[in-house]
Parts: sequence; structure tokens; C-alpha cells
Amino acid sequence: MNDSHVSRLKGSVRLIDLPQIRDPRGDLTFVEGGNHIPFDIRRVYYLYNVPVDAERGGHAHRDLEQIVFALSGSFRMRIDDGETKSEYWLRDPRKGLYISRMIWREMDSFSQGAVCMVLASHRYDEADYYRDYDEFLAAVRGRG
Amino acid sequence: MNDSHVSRLKGSVRLIDLPQIRDPRGDLTFVEGGNHIPFDIRRVYYLYNVPVDAERGGHAHRDLEQIVFALSGSFRMRIDDGETKSEYWLRDPRKGLYISRMIWREMDSFSQGAVCMVLASHRYDEADYYRDYDEFLAAVRGRG
Repeated sequence: MNDSHVSRLKGSVRLIDLPQIRDPRGDLTFVEGGNHIPFDIRRVYYLYNVPVDAERGGHAHRDLEQIVFALSGSFRMRIDDGETKSEYWLRDPRKGLYISRMIWREMDSFSQGAVCMVLASHRYDEADYYRDYDEFLAAVRGRG
Repeated sequence: MNDSHVSRLKGSVRLIDLPQIRDPRGDLTFVEGGNHIPFDIRRVYYLYNVPVDAERGGHAHRDLEQIVFALSGSFRMRIDDGETKSEYWLRDPRKGLYISRMIWREMDSFSQGAVCMVLASHRYDEADYYRDYDEFLAAVRGRG
């Protein structure tokens, strides 16, 4: 693995520390599109009522960029860029996991009452999804 | 109170039902700026670690529009347009409370572990705030 490859990996998935305003009346974290994160926010979605044994994700995107947050509780994100796999445990509302295009992701190990919020760079587009892992692998390795 | 006044009130604060994709692996709700809500999403912020006896809010905005969600737990929003007061109990992640410009809002009665998420039409701007109720009242009644 050469340096440029390391840089590409670092750029494609990384934790972003968001500002936090601590207050005896509760903590507040804010995110502005194009400011704290590298894209404008076109879509926000959130997962809730997730059973603790659920597995979510299992797809990649052709163009979509996202930031994933655990706003309550915790869960695991398993990340795969076609060459390297890594995992992140999200449990701190101040830390968002940036995921670029062409990254396979899976989620599991949800705690009771976990809430996952995602900020996305584009509106929903089914044509943007890879839902088949082998198809994703072929594409990311330049054979797609 | 005449009809046009009623319409104005309805338009300035209202619950918006968002789509929900129910799934045995957890429920998902999504929001697209300019589609499900009447503005582009420039800023997202969220409140967490809120003590159950906390009171938040206590301000109005000159121009900002917002949608407020209870992503976990529940809380009360007390709304005041300078002429009429109302209150909403937020507890359903599918329902966002739209709040237009020039609306005084206060929040309290947070349940244990409540998470409040807000989508906003503009970036943070302290000059957009009314933090003094009397000043807000004078402005909204046309004497500001």
C-alpha cells in the first residue's frame, strides 16, 4: 500500500468532529452544509425502532456522500472500499462518520433505543445504489 | 379573528407528516429540502443530554424557518406568534413541527434521553435572533 493509496482511504471514510455547545440545560451540536461537512445537505434521514439484532446497510453508492451520526445509543458501521475493510463504533453525537461514494457499508450491533441520523449530499435515487456486493467490487476495481 | 388570520396562523406553525419506511430491521424516515419541507436545509442541529427539568428556546427569529423533531423521547414546544399561544407535544419521529419566522418558542418537559433535531433554512446568524420577548412582541405587532 503506497502513500497515495493511504491518502485516498483517509479521504473516503473519516470521523468528523462537530462543534458542541455544552450547557446545563443540555448539549447542542450543529452541522452546516458546505461548512462543517464537504457537501450541501439535500436529504436527512434517520433510523429508529431498530431491533438490537438488526443488520442494516448492505449497499454502496455511485455518487452519494453521507455523514452518519449516532444521536442516541450506539451501533457499529462496517466499511469496505473494495480493498480494505474497517469498522467504526458510533456512540458520540458530536462525531459524524463521513462516507464518500463507492464505499460498501453495513450496520449492526444497535443498542436499545439507538437513533442513527444520516445527512446526504443528494436526494434519493435508486439508480445510485449498488445493492449487489460483487457488482460493487467489480466497479470499484475498475472492471465494472 | 377573521379567516385570513386563521390561515396565517395555520401557515406559520404546523405539523408536517414525513414519510416512513417500516421494516422489521427498524423504521426509517426521510426529509428532502424543498420537497417534504418548504426550504433548503442549510443547518442541522440537535439537542441531547437534556435534563428533564430543562427549559430551552426562549427566542424568535427574524427570517429563519425551522422544522423540529423528537427523534427519541418527547418534549413540549410552546409557541407564540404575538397574538395566540399554542403548544405541541412532540414524540413521534415521523412528525416535524414547522415554525416560520417571527414565532416565539419555548421547550420544556423533556423526557429522559430525549433527542431534539432541528432542520433550519439558514446558517447560524446571531443578528437573526430576538432574545427579548418584549422586543419580539413590539416587532411582530408592527411597532418594532
